[in-house]
Amino acid sequence: MDNFQFKVEPFSEDVTGHLSWGVLGNQLLRVANLSASKHDFGFSNVAESHYAWVLSRLIIEVGDMPQTGADYSINTWVSRVYRQFTDRLFSLTNAAGEPFGYAHSIWALIDLETRQPADIEHMADSAIAKAAEPYTIPISSVSRVKVAQTEPVRILKAAYGDLDINGHVNSIRYLQATLDTLYDCFAAALNYERHRVRRVEISYSKELYFGDNLFFYAQQEDELTYAVEIKTDQNVVATKVKVFFEPVCK
Amino acid sequence: MDNFQFKVEPFSEDVTGHLSWGVLGNQLLRVANLSASKHDFGFSNVAESHYAWVLSRLIIEVGDMPQTGADYSINTWVSRVYRQFTDRLFSLTNAAGEPFGYAHSIWALIDLETRQPADIEHMADSAIAKAAEPYTIPISSVSRVKVAQTEPVRILKAAYGDLDINGHVNSIRYLQATLDTLYDCFAAALNYERHRVRRVEISYSKELYFGDNLFFYAQQEDELTYAVEIKTDQNVVATKVKVFFEPVCK
Repeated sequence: MDNFQFKVEPFSEDVTGHLSWGVLGNQLLRVANLSASKHDFGFSNVAESHYAWVLSRLIIEVGDMPQTGADYSINTWVSRVYRQFTDRLFSLTNAAGEPFGYAHSIWALIDLETRQPADIEHMADSAIAKAAEPYTIPISSVSRVKVAQTEPVRILKAAYGDLDINGHVNSIRYLQATLDTLYDCFAAALNYERHRVRRVEISYSKELYFGDNLFFYAQQEDELTYAVEIKTDQNVVATKVKVFFEPVCK
Repeated sequence: MDNFQFKVEPFSEDVTGHLSWGVLGNQLLRVANLSASKHDFGFSNVAESHYAWVLSRLIIEVGDMPQTGADYSINTWVSRVYRQFTDRLFSLTNAAGEPFGYAHSIWALIDLETRQPADIEHMADSAIAKAAEPYTIPISSVSRVKVAQTEPVRILKAAYGDLDINGHVNSIRYLQATLDTLYDCFAAALNYERHRVRRVEISYSKELYFGDNLFFYAQQEDELTYAVEIKTDQNVVATKVKVFFEPVCK
């Protein structure tokens, strides 16, 4: 298990003064790579064999997000290697060392020439299999997302600032844009001062590029749960996001 | 002069692999407050007297932006106190200690009850006047922005993720949204792989809030210079931005 220390930097919190979901999401991806590199299977390690890690699922569940100036840690480890996938888990601890959240990511290793996923489970002499540690986390796995809406609530054109260094729309940008969309389109029911995000589930199917249009189809599943499908202009699902809110007690 | 150390964090660069303008802009605001607090006139110090610092102008000029993993420093100091304003300057240095950019910010101190700016120059026993250091930087001051276009090229609705802890659209968000708009709307002339940003000038007039519509009026001034006015739905200018690009030599 690897540990990384952070602080909620002033001028980077969300409007409520807490660590923002966008900052946290990008930090999870960063420590995933730092931890993998430490065990010799990071992005640059696998690139030597013409492979790349691709994020398939990301679930984040958080209780009390730390506030401006607070210290926190992200702990991360690979828990499992199975078929074409690997599970990387995270626990988030506050300055007192108490857990305030968990995350579960699922990654595939893609052959950059054939674009096919590698059979990680049966790779010989695998650094990743050696690194696996069997610790679990107390959050449930991804649930089903099916959006029946036929009219998009928002269309977003992928812009310069949405892109990561590979020219794809940044994985966490889908989450940020989904939260912006929900707090806007369901404003009568959802207000960021009274409803905070408790859990997000993101499923990635297709990478999008500069200038692509992202069509957001959204629906309320129950009082505090919303499902979003982000589709291309060919009506192909690129990303699905489910967001679970909870009331803020003041 | 106060010095703050940074690193270009992987998973936070722009699509070209350089420190992004959004990250840099927010770091400038953060070190401005850290430096001011060190000299007893930060946001929390002036809040005790029911004042708040308001950013009026920001000019940033950069040569070679550092790339993924590189260390860099931001040095900052107050250079001048005059009438209702104060100038805070910045120099940016790379890992070798060589300057790669500069920034010039202008701030007013607003009385939170009357909403009027204070006469900083004539305040008795002023911590800020004592802190001033006369070092200058080699970049020119703000130029005139006048956009004749009558049709907006983009309308953006201020969303949850655009807001700072005070509920205003984040000062740097105007810059990010302007760069996204220019690289999109002038795509035939501007391409982020061939044209990088060399200098930005931002003038802030009016704060905007959740749900406000931002109307972007943009025009090309010469081959590599673009002017943008961001207006409210009442046709009032909230922010003006001028962006100077330069060709990327590969």
